[in-house]
Amino acid sequence: MNKVRIGIIGAGRIGKIHADNLRRHPQAEIVAIGDLFADDELVDWANARGIPVVTNDSEDIINNPDIDVVFICSSTDSHVPLIKQAARKGKHIFCEKPISMDIRQTEEALEEVRRAGVQLQVGFNRRFDHNFRRVRGHVEAGAIGEVQLIKITSRDPIPPPEDYIEVSGGIFMDMMIHDFDMARYLSGSEVEEVFAQGGVLVDPAFARYDDIDTAIVTLRFTNGAFGVIDCSRKAVYGYDQRAEAFGSKGVATADNDYPNTAVLSTEDGIWRDKPPHFFLERYNAAYVLETEQFIDCVLNGSAVPVSGEDGWQAEKIAWAAKRSLHERRVVKLTELDDRNEDELAERQTEGR
Amino acid sequence: MNKVRIGIIGAGRIGKIHADNLRRHPQAEIVAIGDLFADDELVDWANARGIPVVTNDSEDIINNPDIDVVFICSSTDSHVPLIKQAARKGKHIFCEKPISMDIRQTEEALEEVRRAGVQLQVGFNRRFDHNFRRVRGHVEAGAIGEVQLIKITSRDPIPPPEDYIEVSGGIFMDMMIHDFDMARYLSGSEVEEVFAQGGVLVDPAFARYDDIDTAIVTLRFTNGAFGVIDCSRKAVYGYDQRAEAFGSKGVATADNDYPNTAVLSTEDGIWRDKPPHFFLERYNAAYVLETEQFIDCVLNGSAVPVSGEDGWQAEKIAWAAKRSLHERRVVKLTELDDRNEDELAERQTEGR
Amino acid sequence: MNKVRIGIIGAGRIGKIHADNLRRHPQAEIVAIGDLFADDELVDWANARGIPVVTNDSEDIINNPDIDVVFICSSTDSHVPLIKQAARKGKHIFCEKPISMDIRQTEEALEEVRRAGVQLQVGFNRRFDHNFRRVRGHVEAGAIGEVQLIKITSRDPIPPPEDYIEVSGGIFMDMMIHDFDMARYLSGSEVEEVFAQGGVLVDPAFARYDDIDTAIVTLRFTNGAFGVIDCSRKAVYGYDQRAEAFGSKGVATADNDYPNTAVLSTEDGIWRDKPPHFFLERYNAAYVLETEQFIDCVLNGSAVPVSGEDGWQAEKIAWAAKRSLHERRVVKLTELDDRNEDELAERQTEGR
Amino acid sequence: MNKVRIGIIGAGRIGKIHADNLRRHPQAEIVAIGDLFADDELVDWANARGIPVVTNDSEDIINNPDIDVVFICSSTDSHVPLIKQAARKGKHIFCEKPISMDIRQTEEALEEVRRAGVQLQVGFNRRFDHNFRRVRGHVEAGAIGEVQLIKITSRDPIPPPEDYIEVSGGIFMDMMIHDFDMARYLSGSEVEEVFAQGGVLVDPAFARYDDIDTAIVTLRFTNGAFGVIDCSRKAVYGYDQRAEAFGSKGVATADNDYPNTAVLSTEDGIWRDKPPHFFLERYNAAYVLETEQFIDCVLNGSAVPVSGEDGWQAEKIAWAAKRSLHERRVVKLTELDDRNEDELAERQTEGR
Repeated sequence: MNKVRIGIIGAGRIGKIHADNLRRHPQAEIVAIGDLFADDELVDWANARGIPVVTNDSEDIINNPDIDVVFICSSTDSHVPLIKQAARKGKHIFCEKPISMDIRQTEEALEEVRRAGVQLQVGFNRRFDHNFRRVRGHVEAGAIGEVQLIKITSRDPIPPPEDYIEVSGGIFMDMMIHDFDMARYLSGSEVEEVFAQGGVLVDPAFARYDDIDTAIVTLRFTNGAFGVIDCSRKAVYGYDQRAEAFGSKGVATADNDYPNTAVLSTEDGIWRDKPPHFFLERYNAAYVLETEQFIDCVLNGSAVPVSGEDGWQAEKIAWAAKRSLHERRVVKLTELDDRNEDELAERQTEGR
Repeated sequence: MNKVRIGIIGAGRIGKIHADNLRRHPQAEIVAIGDLFADDELVDWANARGIPVVTNDSEDIINNPDIDVVFICSSTDSHVPLIKQAARKGKHIFCEKPISMDIRQTEEALEEVRRAGVQLQVGFNRRFDHNFRRVRGHVEAGAIGEVQLIKITSRDPIPPPEDYIEVSGGIFMDMMIHDFDMARYLSGSEVEEVFAQGGVLVDPAFARYDDIDTAIVTLRFTNGAFGVIDCSRKAVYGYDQRAEAFGSKGVATADNDYPNTAVLSTEDGIWRDKPPHFFLERYNAAYVLETEQFIDCVLNGSAVPVSGEDGWQAEKIAWAAKRSLHERRVVKLTELDDRNEDELAERQTEGR
Repeated sequence: MNKVRIGIIGAGRIGKIHADNLRRHPQAEIVAIGDLFADDELVDWANARGIPVVTNDSEDIINNPDIDVVFICSSTDSHVPLIKQAARKGKHIFCEKPISMDIRQTEEALEEVRRAGVQLQVGFNRRFDHNFRRVRGHVEAGAIGEVQLIKITSRDPIPPPEDYIEVSGGIFMDMMIHDFDMARYLSGSEVEEVFAQGGVLVDPAFARYDDIDTAIVTLRFTNGAFGVIDCSRKAVYGYDQRAEAFGSKGVATADNDYPNTAVLSTEDGIWRDKPPHFFLERYNAAYVLETEQFIDCVLNGSAVPVSGEDGWQAEKIAWAAKRSLHERRVVKLTELDDRNEDELAERQTEGR
Repeated sequence: MNKVRIGIIGAGRIGKIHADNLRRHPQAEIVAIGDLFADDELVDWANARGIPVVTNDSEDIINNPDIDVVFICSSTDSHVPLIKQAARKGKHIFCEKPISMDIRQTEEALEEVRRAGVQLQVGFNRRFDHNFRRVRGHVEAGAIGEVQLIKITSRDPIPPPEDYIEVSGGIFMDMMIHDFDMARYLSGSEVEEVFAQGGVLVDPAFARYDDIDTAIVTLRFTNGAFGVIDCSRKAVYGYDQRAEAFGSKGVATADNDYPNTAVLSTEDGIWRDKPPHFFLERYNAAYVLETEQFIDCVLNGSAVPVSGEDGWQAEKIAWAAKRSLHERRVVKLTELDDRNEDELAERQTEGR
């Protein structure tokens, strides 16, 4: 393959970011962009970028034989049907996280992808961050020896608006799913058990949707190591994204980025600027790199750096965290399989 | 009171450190030092410091009417009887942590102290560390707003020898008790619930004594905030002692100390020295300050900065952590009282 | 003006970088690129970027009526004639530093620019660096009070090859001219006196061309403040670019950038990665910003952020530094005017 | 020698600090303290420390046969006569810096010391600072290769009162003499040439005494390396004491110390405490170490770590800096010898 022809479904903020990043790749060509609410503004936006087709029907993209790759950037509930359709048409897929909020559905989508033999990359952009990659590099190189502890700090600068909270899927599936993936990425191990604790300390709106805004999740990995993630929907000093991998031979830590290295010292103290505001600023280069690597994998037919399996594992941890929070106990990921058997049984009964 | 006359019981490493620090206080005079294994070497050591009396019988100190204050630096199992005896003799007491490994006994010792109306300070030296005090200062000044999360990293550079492991009381009572106190100190709140997870990743010797060497303990405070402590018996890069208080208006963090600020940059990278080796190096100034403030409180009759109640609360958290680890569930501190009721009932039955 | 049509003269490394950066500006269109040694490879490179014209004759660009703006990225000795020609044709000019190595010629070129009423921006890219801009911002905001001292560290990772040394113009005009501009930029003041000291400590090749590789230059500004720049052609740990502005109310410092924030701690010490290798890595974003702002100024007719006067002032400091090094004394910038008067007189005599 | 008996001459701030530090050395005994203005307060102070003799006549100390070592902490003009007297009485000497403000007199004092065969240590306390020692350690270990540049920042938090300025000897002899010694210490090389520039930017009082408050001094070492020191009498953000040794294989830098590692992050930025206020706070441990090493050298008869020669060399640099400032040219240290020849000739003439 010499050039990749791309269709983007979902022209929200993240869809547009992917579009602009894809334009920097010499072998990527955006053929069409689709959005339920496509309007004149989107047409202008597409024209300025030389994207010929704008549509409000995702089928125009799925069924377009000129398109090799579909970027699914629409709302989460549309991911599974779009993945299935795109896979059946033999298109490679880049899908934003999470694949879905129902692990069984995610499994079905992945099954379809496997059958079709197409590529699927999940949008865990943080794996492409310069800082976390360097920590992972130290782990892989054996510089910290056997991994014993993974620590992640994950704090947003501002909570989302209430209408987003309502449909977000909750803190574990919406926000911490990135951290669950990071825990797997940094440790190089699977999660076996989860314990979650948390509450509403930031904004009572979360309580109205049976959600929380502050959480601490403890993990046990299959290799015996532990993990701990602390998460808040509101850190007034900016997006706080740090990680640490501790092991038998040392520790590798990644601090936040800063917009500059300037330090001001006055009678009042020593002072520097806050970290970049939010994910678009912090993970700007990571978004570029994840699409670049995805396009390269499609071109070369090599394995994508973040697979559907990675998406599925993170969702399982989110599921276990939610159950742990509600039942106030350690939850094993294997419980999920048991539950699904039961639920399937129930569903079949209901379906009769 | 113009001068404080002191007797030290226990001439191990920590007893000698307190002795040397006390000598720097112009109103403190060490009258006697006692140790079960007092020998010629100790006599020489005492002579060089102008300490007139060396004894192998703690009663010589307890019963000495010239002594105002007793420093209890002997093994943990001797703390409670010594506190009781000293209190009955009207002496003020500085006692190393923990007061005991049995919370009921700790309560009884504290009851005796209250009855006698003497001062009792517990050796939570980290409260006097320059870094943690500054974080606490920010919390107290309201600089971080409402406290929402306390995070503590607590890692020793080397595990203790096996014979110490055997009698240590376990990671929670021996090592993390400092961190439990720090969590209360930084948050300014009491702990309500504890969840502990951990394992043996460092040295199989711990398993032989039903102990662990790696732990993550999650706390919930009565004010709704959360806490998380990660702990390891072995960080090869040195004593790792960091803390963070996060709240509605900001975060205050305390990094490790370093022996110097020198940085070497070569073709291979940017390099600096490891943190100070262990607690004696890191908390050197804190040990001086804790004894200084204790002596000042005895002289002025003002409240000691770390009370017996503080010691007791930390022990309760350690107890809950141990139970949580074994029962794999969240443990409330109030369960302790229930248990004690039952146990008391049992004991009374047995006693008949 | 709605769109800017650009011709680039000089297709070396820096010319190509400007081309790629200009492509990101929606109102910039590269119409032609010229290079004395234009070959098939350059044609391919231009094709891939949609640049229609490739030429080996700069006149094709200068005389092209479709071109509004000329980027002069050719060798230094061609700058003055190209500026004069472009100005006479009414084209706006972006010229790499230095304008020339003969201040009198620079003056003549600037005179031509003034007569033509076109814009001229000089390529002092470091003014657009995030760190130095922040320091300048603190100075401008009065955060450090009256400026008293400007300190600049300027060290390249590797010395240039010998054939470059031969034509470089020497350390002051080639390398430190950036630092002289930075000193003016950060202080907001003009330089009055210069004292330069230095030697050959890195590579004897420099001595063969009457050049040095290590220098310390002390400045006195017209507002009474001082400046000091230390410079080396070889810092094995990477490109070392730091600055500091000290004043009556504080100090603002800018450290190097780092490729990531990851820190590795092991038994051997605490370790992080070196700074970015060289100017392309460190000043990547600054190159983008300088062209963006230049294009915007051309579009809006507003004053460029780095004028020809700025280029000329920096050259005067370089001249004074060279004279100071050779005569081992403080040199005033006004001496330059005296010298020129004399030299002009001499030239006129010779000319008869 | 088993114990060192000490007499201190000069009971000002620094004399008292040395006294308190000497008390911590088990083999040091302070026998007497003398001060021209000895009063009841000093007697009380001495009593509280068990110092038996207080006198207002330095001869009582010089002539006391029980005294092995004299600490000269009196005003600079008394140093030379006291050194000569003490040396003649065979006493080892610790003398505060500078030995004198007249290099010829310093030479005479050192000659007397040599004749008497006693030890003389000069109070360049910064050589004992943990940060600068570490930089020196890297240089000595060859970690930075051949030294090419020494950079020192030396800024006081507040200028001295006017009556001190009057007698201080000027910025070079009073303040920068420490930095001149540091330059020699870090480089391991002698200074050959000096160029000084500076002015009055902080307080017009300095101008009234033909002194300056802001200076940049450039050095050339005999091994070809360069040095640069920037100095200010007023840094509002605290005592600023940094150093850097740059060489063919790397750079070693020493940042300021900080009173704690606590960092506060809020909506307004990232903030930490200023460095320690002034030399007593910053160099506290260095003062302890310098007296400890001096006492050990006296006990062992080994060479002192900072010799009279070291004091004399720093004074020569200060002399050259002053001459350079006034004559606006590079001054060689060898000029000093020429001058002295002339001056000696003149004096002899006058003396007839």
